[in-house]
Amino acid sequence: MAEGRLLSVKEIEKHNSPSDIWIVVDGQVWDLTEFHQEHPGGSAIILKYAGRDASKAYNEAHSPSVIKKNLRQDQFKGVLDQSTINNEWLKEPPTENARVMLDNEKPPLTTLINAHDFETVASKTVSKKTWAFYSSAATDLITRDANKSCFDRIWFRPRVMRNVRSIDTRTTVQGTDLSFPLFVSPAAMARMIHPDGECAIARACERKGIMQGVSNNSSFSVEELVEAAPNGSFFFQLYVNPNREKSAALLHQISSLPQFKAIHITVDAAWPGKREADERVKADEDMGVPMSNVKAKNDTKGGGIGRLMAGNIDPGLTWDDIAFVRKHTHLPVCLKGVMSADDAILAMEAGVDGLLLSNHGGRNLDTSPPSIITLLELHRRCPEIFDKMEIYVDSGIRRGTDVLKAIALGATAVGMGRSMLFATNYGQEGVEHLIDIIREEFETAMKNSGITSISEASPELVNTGDVDHLVPASRLHPYARKITRGPKHHRTSKI
Amino acid sequence: MAEGRLLSVKEIEKHNSPSDIWIVVDGQVWDLTEFHQEHPGGSAIILKYAGRDASKAYNEAHSPSVIKKNLRQDQFKGVLDQSTINNEWLKEPPTENARVMLDNEKPPLTTLINAHDFETVASKTVSKKTWAFYSSAATDLITRDANKSCFDRIWFRPRVMRNVRSIDTRTTVQGTDLSFPLFVSPAAMARMIHPDGECAIARACERKGIMQGVSNNSSFSVEELVEAAPNGSFFFQLYVNPNREKSAALLHQISSLPQFKAIHITVDAAWPGKREADERVKADEDMGVPMSNVKAKNDTKGGGIGRLMAGNIDPGLTWDDIAFVRKHTHLPVCLKGVMSADDAILAMEAGVDGLLLSNHGGRNLDTSPPSIITLLELHRRCPEIFDKMEIYVDSGIRRGTDVLKAIALGATAVGMGRSMLFATNYGQEGVEHLIDIIREEFETAMKNSGITSISEASPELVNTGDVDHLVPASRLHPYARKITRGPKHHRTSKI
Amino acid sequence: MAEGRLLSVKEIEKHNSPSDIWIVVDGQVWDLTEFHQEHPGGSAIILKYAGRDASKAYNEAHSPSVIKKNLRQDQFKGVLDQSTINNEWLKEPPTENARVMLDNEKPPLTTLINAHDFETVASKTVSKKTWAFYSSAATDLITRDANKSCFDRIWFRPRVMRNVRSIDTRTTVQGTDLSFPLFVSPAAMARMIHPDGECAIARACERKGIMQGVSNNSSFSVEELVEAAPNGSFFFQLYVNPNREKSAALLHQISSLPQFKAIHITVDAAWPGKREADERVKADEDMGVPMSNVKAKNDTKGGGIGRLMAGNIDPGLTWDDIAFVRKHTHLPVCLKGVMSADDAILAMEAGVDGLLLSNHGGRNLDTSPPSIITLLELHRRCPEIFDKMEIYVDSGIRRGTDVLKAIALGATAVGMGRSMLFATNYGQEGVEHLIDIIREEFETAMKNSGITSISEASPELVNTGDVDHLVPASRLHPYARKITRGPKHHRTSKI
Amino acid sequence: MAEGRLLSVKEIEKHNSPSDIWIVVDGQVWDLTEFHQEHPGGSAIILKYAGRDASKAYNEAHSPSVIKKNLRQDQFKGVLDQSTINNEWLKEPPTENARVMLDNEKPPLTTLINAHDFETVASKTVSKKTWAFYSSAATDLITRDANKSCFDRIWFRPRVMRNVRSIDTRTTVQGTDLSFPLFVSPAAMARMIHPDGECAIARACERKGIMQGVSNNSSFSVEELVEAAPNGSFFFQLYVNPNREKSAALLHQISSLPQFKAIHITVDAAWPGKREADERVKADEDMGVPMSNVKAKNDTKGGGIGRLMAGNIDPGLTWDDIAFVRKHTHLPVCLKGVMSADDAILAMEAGVDGLLLSNHGGRNLDTSPPSIITLLELHRRCPEIFDKMEIYVDSGIRRGTDVLKAIALGATAVGMGRSMLFATNYGQEGVEHLIDIIREEFETAMKNSGITSISEASPELVNTGDVDHLVPASRLHPYARKITRGPKHHRTSKI
Repeated sequence: MAEGRLLSVKEIEKHNSPSDIWIVVDGQVWDLTEFHQEHPGGSAIILKYAGRDASKAYNEAHSPSVIKKNLRQDQFKGVLDQSTINNEWLKEPPTENARVMLDNEKPPLTTLINAHDFETVASKTVSKKTWAFYSSAATDLITRDANKSCFDRIWFRPRVMRNVRSIDTRTTVQGTDLSFPLFVSPAAMARMIHPDGECAIARACERKGIMQGVSNNSSFSVEELVEAAPNGSFFFQLYVNPNREKSAALLHQISSLPQFKAIHITVDAAWPGKREADERVKADEDMGVPMSNVKAKNDTKGGGIGRLMAGNIDPGLTWDDIAFVRKHTHLPVCLKGVMSADDAILAMEAGVDGLLLSNHGGRNLDTSPPSIITLLELHRRCPEIFDKMEIYVDSGIRRGTDVLKAIALGATAVGMGRSMLFATNYGQEGVEHLIDIIREEFETAMKNSGITSISEASPELVNTGDVDHLVPASRLHPYARKITRGPKHHRTSKI
Repeated sequence: MAEGRLLSVKEIEKHNSPSDIWIVVDGQVWDLTEFHQEHPGGSAIILKYAGRDASKAYNEAHSPSVIKKNLRQDQFKGVLDQSTINNEWLKEPPTENARVMLDNEKPPLTTLINAHDFETVASKTVSKKTWAFYSSAATDLITRDANKSCFDRIWFRPRVMRNVRSIDTRTTVQGTDLSFPLFVSPAAMARMIHPDGECAIARACERKGIMQGVSNNSSFSVEELVEAAPNGSFFFQLYVNPNREKSAALLHQISSLPQFKAIHITVDAAWPGKREADERVKADEDMGVPMSNVKAKNDTKGGGIGRLMAGNIDPGLTWDDIAFVRKHTHLPVCLKGVMSADDAILAMEAGVDGLLLSNHGGRNLDTSPPSIITLLELHRRCPEIFDKMEIYVDSGIRRGTDVLKAIALGATAVGMGRSMLFATNYGQEGVEHLIDIIREEFETAMKNSGITSISEASPELVNTGDVDHLVPASRLHPYARKITRGPKHHRTSKI
Repeated sequence: MAEGRLLSVKEIEKHNSPSDIWIVVDGQVWDLTEFHQEHPGGSAIILKYAGRDASKAYNEAHSPSVIKKNLRQDQFKGVLDQSTINNEWLKEPPTENARVMLDNEKPPLTTLINAHDFETVASKTVSKKTWAFYSSAATDLITRDANKSCFDRIWFRPRVMRNVRSIDTRTTVQGTDLSFPLFVSPAAMARMIHPDGECAIARACERKGIMQGVSNNSSFSVEELVEAAPNGSFFFQLYVNPNREKSAALLHQISSLPQFKAIHITVDAAWPGKREADERVKADEDMGVPMSNVKAKNDTKGGGIGRLMAGNIDPGLTWDDIAFVRKHTHLPVCLKGVMSADDAILAMEAGVDGLLLSNHGGRNLDTSPPSIITLLELHRRCPEIFDKMEIYVDSGIRRGTDVLKAIALGATAVGMGRSMLFATNYGQEGVEHLIDIIREEFETAMKNSGITSISEASPELVNTGDVDHLVPASRLHPYARKITRGPKHHRTSKI
Repeated sequence: MAEGRLLSVKEIEKHNSPSDIWIVVDGQVWDLTEFHQEHPGGSAIILKYAGRDASKAYNEAHSPSVIKKNLRQDQFKGVLDQSTINNEWLKEPPTENARVMLDNEKPPLTTLINAHDFETVASKTVSKKTWAFYSSAATDLITRDANKSCFDRIWFRPRVMRNVRSIDTRTTVQGTDLSFPLFVSPAAMARMIHPDGECAIARACERKGIMQGVSNNSSFSVEELVEAAPNGSFFFQLYVNPNREKSAALLHQISSLPQFKAIHITVDAAWPGKREADERVKADEDMGVPMSNVKAKNDTKGGGIGRLMAGNIDPGLTWDDIAFVRKHTHLPVCLKGVMSADDAILAMEAGVDGLLLSNHGGRNLDTSPPSIITLLELHRRCPEIFDKMEIYVDSGIRRGTDVLKAIALGATAVGMGRSMLFATNYGQEGVEHLIDIIREEFETAMKNSGITSISEASPELVNTGDVDHLVPASRLHPYARKITRGPKHHRTSKI
């Protein structure tokens, strides 16, 4: 094989795009165009060396035979003509999108003992672009950080000397049993972090008895997910398409799958937020989102993936669309992304089946309210809503204590997005481990606050004194007057 | 040419002041006294090498021929006598006022994606003095920082499921159309940062359909600005001169230019603030302000430029001067720098046409209130003002979300000063890019908070719960008693 | 002796577990299995070198003869066969559990002048595991830090010109005299930090006239403590055992010792908190807790010692157990760990003799309320309790001023746990020194706030304005509505 | 001279105490016992080399002849016997108390433009002990820091368009004219920082028309101060001596000096605070306080100077002592250190002539209230006091804006202590420069807030919304109940 035709550096360098990848390993030139998507170590590392010599990186990670075993004879292109090597060729390629650590350098899963650990490991082991996409949030990150800090500023009021030998964490969401009140919040394109992506999450949720929210921008189709976890429970996070027929078709497709228990219409992303960390890192332009047919690209604003997926999202969504959705599904219909009691009240009037209080993890409109504050606003302004529909909360949950605080304040279940994606870095096993961690934290919090079942969790369990001044008491601003725009009466300069 | 007369190091070193600059490049001695002001890379770099050998710096930035092409034959003074070189000569000059980066080292404009980026780049690429002048604020920087943090502590109350497919950001200021409610706040001497200075800003504003506030200390005359942007819209920020005749003349000059739409009398700078960063950096003493005939200088208090411009500002300004101004202009008359509802009420009584709530970017009196808090104070104490005149806000605006918050709370338009100057670092193109950024952030915020036009922006859109305790409810202190000074009744020691 | 049989590296390396320790010093092989527990420098350093060559570490700390003097002839095992030395053998062992400093490197006791100093020294001189066990707290450390910061946010209202020449700091706890209102809070396994452990504390407390709380997980038995300090005063912190008979026996044993003045039933640790720093450091698996027969171990969750002691704690503890305890002791019965006025009210109804307000030093449930806030809650909601029983406070006390604040707010005495353990690092002398420091700080605070006896300490002495919003005013949440779980009425999707 | 007798290292090393100092310079041995106190560079540097070779340090700072010129023939002791030099001799002495910079390395005075600058320079140029003594404050520095931050949290409510061309900053204190409402707060032992100590301050105050408070622990006698500044104005800060006769004598001595305008009885230092930074640095044991006959010493608690001066302070001071003081002086009698409205009310009843609200710069009781908060408390609880006596404020003032805020809230004048001492580092000139700085900041603040005289300064000028929750509204705690100590009623265990 090593006797293939001689290929010059100049020739090899041409094959440097995702759709045409040649790579040199130990003097042999291979075509990895087909293979790079299946590469267990991620395509980023291969793209990094497209049109270049990858021997050093290859040999650090693999034995010499691996390449031959994984590639076909016809993917061998020839032999590097050593006489054509120049200085440029010898340089390391820019490392922008490279992983900082290889998979085999990750710390063992058992040494990760909380959600923060998964985030820390991800920050060091996933590609720059993946990290940027998942970790980023809108502009100054104020809402992203407040999501967490508002939970931290709510204190427990623990009760003692209550028999907590055995506790029951079970609950139901839209009639479906959950082992404890947690679900995985829908998030786009989990394949960026692991080849099994949402399938890994699906299997982990199925195994641990929690629900998975599936993003419209999932890297796997709903059929693939259902196949991965036939006994799983899912809800679907719908971005209503400008072309309603596409959404209708999708709703029918989903509604035919018994594993899907609800439709969540996304309402907190009328327009893509400005996620600057995401914009600052170039996208791998070959990266695609199967379900939505979107391709990443770099433009004058940067390489933001979130922004590019918005083409399939209709900013013209209105309350009337609830009827449209209902027409195409028999499933309960919820709204994902309500951020005010005002819209919660409209949702009651519209008769929806549930609300997911969410600010999209702080990714869309910076300084939008933390979800836990919105939950408090519902108590202050429309407490009757808790009798009429299920309320869920996500954005900022990192601890089992956070879950219990939301439940105590009336949430039916609580979602974790980012953390679960960072756990997907370890595949199904990672997600299972994180679910176990949160469950154990949640159980510990129940026991140490003196309750034994979800039904005992009540607002009396928490002290919100440090955040109460942040909770609006009415639709109107407490003292600001409504503005009348237009020409002013008192324009003396006109005199 | 290289055969000019031999010049000793001792001779050359004498020509080291802004009014007499000789510089050695590759052994040739040039007189740059005339040229240095026009130097595209700024005069600072030339002043740095006045009376010295600039070969190294020159060659890093220019090809050998550039100097000959730009200078006249008579500006060639002779040839360095190599035999007179001593150790002192070989040392690099002190870099105090040098740019940290040359123009060609600036990051490409498209990689700057928010206002902070422009500030960061400016901090590294403009001369120390320019940076000190623009970035500085009064004493402990408390107001400068609170200007921004108070915006950050105001949250949105976003509404969902409203059709935001098409939005209209247009508004009017004093009857003039703006593409969106932004203007460039007036700031002195933009030539310090770019040779095109305020002209670059004027062209960018004209192109983007926003208004420019022109400082009394502009480095270009109003005629030059109007020539640069004949279809632009301007307002003039007047510092009333101790010599009222000068101000009267200026008002007539401005009022004759149809591009000028209003006069803003500066009221927040009775006395120059103590901007310590500015004082700590030596001024280039040849630096002048065309319109106000002020020259920078260094004195025992430091090199503060702001302080030196104050000679043309009358600390004796009173409410009576409004009549004086009106007498010399037909234009709407606004007050720039009102910081209390008390003065807003007086302004209503005086019948002015608008207020620009401003604390001079925190540059004048430290711990004066953030403008957005003053805006809230108007609602609490004199809400009728919003029917009587236009209210503008500047100081601390860095984001499109900040603009929307001010608009929601009743501002007609919002000004950005410092950020726009930092954008001028890239000339007209830089300012346009920043305007585009803010506009896009503003539009994103409108869409994600569920409104489609300026008239829909209302106080209900924001939650000010975290800052409400900072908003005074009356003219009097809530519990402190008025002090009677003078001898006390109870002086027992007199007994 | 040096002529013992030749032992190969391979042979020696086998003896590397706590139950079988061989160590090489200067070519001689010794069996330290028995001795390592008695090693004055701690067993950690010996375990570190189990199965290895410890010559370097030994010679840094000891003279050559020490080993022979301390070990028996039969503990000499032979001579290292130098020919078997390999590279692995020459490496330093991992230092995870090693002390950073040897005892003789500790700063002199007199240079430690406050409680923080003891913590700092401990962080550098105790083994990693000991540090992790004592310094750790639940999850995000929010309660641990708030315990201290809430004291810091309470201000004195000092009174002046009161004769404070002589002050009286004496008080009584359950009828027993204390020289000042301090006790050592019970904490587990003080031998980890010093071989004298709780005995050192007992002697110091006896000498300084304060009370010692003895943990159920003390490394010494109550008999040993009483023998160490026959004139001391103690209370016993009981973890009620799932096997009530064991607790009954223990209560009888304690009640027979006249030095024990009260029983504190632990109620703030229904379930072990998640102390992540503790989990992250491997436990020495031979480490045991004499009184409770617990052995440390490492499992998939980590090496947390706190968690492993929980096997002897009954999560089924209820209010009925107070009667059980009373049945087996004539001593006053207190509850340790009440965190709400609600439970304080139940405690009044149950007729207990005292409450120790405590959140276990923030070690059990993160975001549980700081004890000083709970003390304030008692004033707000059940002030009559101060007439009915003694109230104690611990968690977060680091200063004599903290003690005075708690006393002023009605506490009878105040406990310090962690700091006292860190002082035990210096043995009895260290604990005495810290008690002296706190006493002097307390006296200084009394004098400078203008009081001369404990009875003059009253709530008027403190200003709690900065924390009052954190104190609940009623059992119910101020505005959140009680949640009814279960199917919702308004499920339109069912229609 | 160099032919003196040979002296061995062993001999020389004996002369190493403040009362017996030999030093070797360039091989010659000198006795500096007498001289070291007069050394312009401070005695610390000489003490550092007592019994050692100081050649290196000497030659870095002085020309060879200086020593001969300044010392007498009989102070030359002999010549170092080079043959006795050993390794120990060659080591540098510990640098604990050395200055970090020599006087000639200080930045030029004109480059210091605010009070912080003086502090920064002092931290680098004064001896460690001096820095520790002046910069230190009680325990955790909470009050020291809150003193400043509470000023920063008070905002101005600036008024505009008021003619501020000419302003009048003059005021009177106890009938004495001040050029502006500032005085130097009394502080001990200014000679530690400069040989001219309080005399330098006296001359500067005289020249700038402000008043100087003289500490009972001044390093110069009142006669020396009056001689230094015969036209100056002073008040005396009295520590009432346990031996009242000594205080009586002192009062007579002071009252006979017409430059003294008032007596301030110190009431905020019943007991010396625990200033840990001071304790941690060894004292120069020969350092003395002339007026109080105190000598510094090091004991088991450390080297705290403040603590050692307390021997002359009577903790038995009571309200009755006011009559004692009045009996021995005709001067107005004020109390320095009142920290509550309660004591202010008592002071009114006692008919004193003024109050200096002070917490001793946070040096005595940590978490005692910032003075500006106490000033607000007077408004809330006993506003009539402002008609009855003069109120002064110190502790935390760093800016002219701070001065204006206190004046606006009713203070007659404001004192600066630490900053003025740090300015004394530059002698009289330094203090004058700092007074000029504060005066200019004060004037700028008056102008930019729209007032032209002290009488116009009123509470309406400031917004205290961010600190109002810290101001007590009554003598009682708002909700805590008074504690009854002693046996409890409900001791069920006794049954």
